[in-house]
Amino acid sequence: MNKVSPTIAEDVPAVMAALGRGAKAAARALALSPREQRDAALRAGARHLRASAAAILAANAQDVAAAKARGTQGSFIDRLTLDDKRLEAVARSLDEIADLPDPLARVLARYERPNGLLIERVATPLGVVGIIFESRPNVAADAGGLCLKSGNAAILRGGSESFHSVRAIHACLTAGLREAGLPEAAISLVPTTDRAAVGEMLAGLDGAIDVIVPRGGKSLVARVQSEARVPVFAHLEGIVHVFVERTADLEKAKKIVLNAKMRRTGICGAAETLLVDRACAQTHLKPLVAMLIEAGCEVRGDGATQAADARVKPARDEDWRTEYLDAIISVGVVDGLAAAIDHIERYGSHHTDCIVSEDRAAAEKFLNEVDSAIVLHNASTQFADGGEFGFGAEIGIATGRMHARGPVGVEQLTSFKYRVRGDGQTRA
Amino acid sequence: MNKVSPTIAEDVPAVMAALGRGAKAAARALALSPREQRDAALRAGARHLRASAAAILAANAQDVAAAKARGTQGSFIDRLTLDDKRLEAVARSLDEIADLPDPLARVLARYERPNGLLIERVATPLGVVGIIFESRPNVAADAGGLCLKSGNAAILRGGSESFHSVRAIHACLTAGLREAGLPEAAISLVPTTDRAAVGEMLAGLDGAIDVIVPRGGKSLVARVQSEARVPVFAHLEGIVHVFVERTADLEKAKKIVLNAKMRRTGICGAAETLLVDRACAQTHLKPLVAMLIEAGCEVRGDGATQAADARVKPARDEDWRTEYLDAIISVGVVDGLAAAIDHIERYGSHHTDCIVSEDRAAAEKFLNEVDSAIVLHNASTQFADGGEFGFGAEIGIATGRMHARGPVGVEQLTSFKYRVRGDGQTRA
Repeated sequence: MNKVSPTIAEDVPAVMAALGRGAKAAARALALSPREQRDAALRAGARHLRASAAAILAANAQDVAAAKARGTQGSFIDRLTLDDKRLEAVARSLDEIADLPDPLARVLARYERPNGLLIERVATPLGVVGIIFESRPNVAADAGGLCLKSGNAAILRGGSESFHSVRAIHACLTAGLREAGLPEAAISLVPTTDRAAVGEMLAGLDGAIDVIVPRGGKSLVARVQSEARVPVFAHLEGIVHVFVERTADLEKAKKIVLNAKMRRTGICGAAETLLVDRACAQTHLKPLVAMLIEAGCEVRGDGATQAADARVKPARDEDWRTEYLDAIISVGVVDGLAAAIDHIERYGSHHTDCIVSEDRAAAEKFLNEVDSAIVLHNASTQFADGGEFGFGAEIGIATGRMHARGPVGVEQLTSFKYRVRGDGQTRA
Repeated sequence: MNKVSPTIAEDVPAVMAALGRGAKAAARALALSPREQRDAALRAGARHLRASAAAILAANAQDVAAAKARGTQGSFIDRLTLDDKRLEAVARSLDEIADLPDPLARVLARYERPNGLLIERVATPLGVVGIIFESRPNVAADAGGLCLKSGNAAILRGGSESFHSVRAIHACLTAGLREAGLPEAAISLVPTTDRAAVGEMLAGLDGAIDVIVPRGGKSLVARVQSEARVPVFAHLEGIVHVFVERTADLEKAKKIVLNAKMRRTGICGAAETLLVDRACAQTHLKPLVAMLIEAGCEVRGDGATQAADARVKPARDEDWRTEYLDAIISVGVVDGLAAAIDHIERYGSHHTDCIVSEDRAAAEKFLNEVDSAIVLHNASTQFADGGEFGFGAEIGIATGRMHARGPVGVEQLTSFKYRVRGDGQTRA
C-alpha cells in the first residue's frame, strides 16, 4: 500500500486540533454569509469538478489499482470506482444543492408576548460537522455540499482506500470556496490516513465538532456510535418490515413487497422481513413467497411459510434481527396487527416500517404505534430517502430521536436561536 | 447523616438497570396515552400534593434539620426549605402544566409529493429523560410534570440532602399516575443516595435513557456534561452581557441594566457584564455605574470605568469570564458594535445577550451575529425563562445547538417521526 499520509503519526493530534480551530473559525464566517455566496461556491465547485474530470479519474484509477493489488472484492471496487457518468452526477448534485431554498432563511416561529416582546425563533447552522466515510469518494462532495448549503463547516475524513480520489474532489470544492470568497476551511479534508485522526474527531477536537455523521458499513457506524463524545446522526442498520394486514389488496401487496425488497437490496430502506397476517395468510402468503422466490430472492420462513412453499428455507431466530442487504428475506405469519407491531418493536431498528392494508383504522394504529423514524401505509419502504421526501438530498438517515430523525437534509443540519425585540421591557 | 438509602451499594447497578427497563416500558405506554390521561395524572398529583402538605413539610423538616446539623450555609438551606406557600406553588405548577396544549398533538409539516405520497412529520416523545438535581425538592414535581405532559418517562435523582422531601413529593406524583391508570414507572425516583447511581444514569442505563437534564450548580452540570454518554440539555453558565450601544436611550438603558443585573442576581439570565460603547461613554457610563453602585452592586471595571467613578474596583481578565450570580458586575468600554460582538464571542457562554440601542440596523446586526441561544434588543436579559417565553414552564435552559436551545419546555421535550400514506406507490 502506498504511503499517502503527508504527516507523520506523532503529528496527528496537532494536525487535527489545527483543523478543528480552522473549521470553527470558518463556521462563524459561513453562519453570517449570504446564501448567494454559499450557492456560488457550490456552483463553482461543480464547475471545477467537471473541468478536472481527467485529473479526478486518474487519481481514482490510482486508488482502484491499489485496492485491486490488495485483492479487494467486487462490490467494494464498485463503490470506489468513478467514471464520467458518476462524476457528472456528483457535479449535478452540487448544482441541485445550490438550487435548494436557503435553510438559514427560515423563521420557525414568531409571536408577541402580552408585554409586547416580539419573539422569533430563527434557523442557524449547527456549527462544524465531522463526516467519517469509507470507500465512496462522492460522499466528499455530497456531504461537503450539504454542510456548506446549511452554513456549517465540514471536516471530511475518507477511507484510506479512496484517499487520492477524495483529495482530487476536495481540491475542486476548495477552488469553489476560494472563488466565492469563503474560507477554504469551510470544507476541510483530514490530510492523513492515520486512524488516530478518527479517534481525535470522535473526541470532538476540543469542542470544535458539533456533530458527527458516519457514512459507511455497520462496523464504522457502531464504532462511531460507541466512541463519539459528540452527537451522531446515523442509523446502525435498517431492519425494515412490511406487514401485510388482513385487509391488504393482494396485487398492491405484491407490488409493494417486490419493490421494497428487490428494487435495490443494498440500501437501508430495503425490506428485510415480511410479516403476513394469519387472517389473510391462506390467500396472500403463497403468492407473495412465490413472487419473491421467482424474482431471485431467497426466502427464510417460519413454519407456516415453509408449509406454503417447499422452496422456503427455515428462519432461525437471528434471521428476524438480520439486515441482509442482499436478495434474502425473512417471512413470518403473525396473529394480527398487535402481534405485528410487537414483532417490529422487538426485532426492528426503528428505521422504516410499512403496513399494507385497506383498513384505514388499522393503518392509523400502525402509523401511530410503530416507533420508527419513517412509517408508511401502502407504499414501498424504498422511499426512505431524503430525495424522495423532497429534501433535495440527504447526508444520511438517522434513527436516534435527538434533533434529526429520518432523512437528514439541509434543514436537519440547522439549529435555531431566539431573537427578542423589545422597547425597554423589564421583568417584574 | 442519616442513612437514607434503602439499598446497599452493591445493588446499585442492578437497581438502576431495573429502573431503566421500567422507565422504558412506561415510556411506550405514555407515548400512546391520550392527553386527557396524562393531564388527569398531573391534576391528581397536584391534588395529592395539597392533601399531603403536612407529611411533605414534615419530611422536609427532617432534611432541613439534617442539613443544619451538618453546618450547611444559608442559601443552601433556603433552596432546600419548603413551606405552605412554596408547596402550593409546586401544586399549581402541575395544574398549569396540565392546562398547556398537548405537545404530542402537533403536525409539524404536511405535504404531498408529486407521486401522491402524503408525508406528515408529527411530534413524538423523546422517550426517557433522566433528571439529576440538587437541593431544590420542587424540581421533582416540575421536571416530572413536564416529562409526563410531553409523554416522556422521567427518572429522578435528587440530592441526598433533599431525599425525604423528594420522596414525599414523588409519592404524590405516583398516586396521581395510579389514579389516572398510567404506569407508576412513568415517573420513577432513584431509591438510593449512593453516588454510583449518578454514574449509572450518565452511562445511559443500557440505552434506556434518551437525554439527561442536570439541574443544579456548575460543578454538577460540568460533571454531567463531561461524563454523560447520552445527550444533555443544559447550560454550564450564563455569562450574560448587556451592550449599551452609542445610540442607546440612557433612561431605557438604566432601566434595562438595573433589571438585568439586580432583579434577581442568582439566576442564569442575570447580567454579569455591562459593555458601553466608547461613543456614548461620556454621557452614559458614569450614570449607569453610579446607578448600579447605589443599588448595592459591586462594579469591577476597566480603566475607563474606574476613571468614571472612584468606587469602581479594577477588573481582572478573569472577571470577564465570571458568572458572579451575585450583586457584582464587570463593566468595560468597547470600541463600537463589532468590538462588543467580539467581546461577547470571546468571553460569553452563548446563553443570553442584549443590545440597548435606538439604531435598528445596529440592533439587527447584533441579533444576527451574536451566537447565543437568546439575543435581545431593548429588553432585560432576565426574560431568559420558559415561562416568559410563553412555554408555560421549562425544565431548564440549554446552550448547546443540538435539538433544544434556549428555554426547554414541553415542545423541546419531543422528537418527531414521519408518517407516509400511499396508495400502492413503488419507487422507480
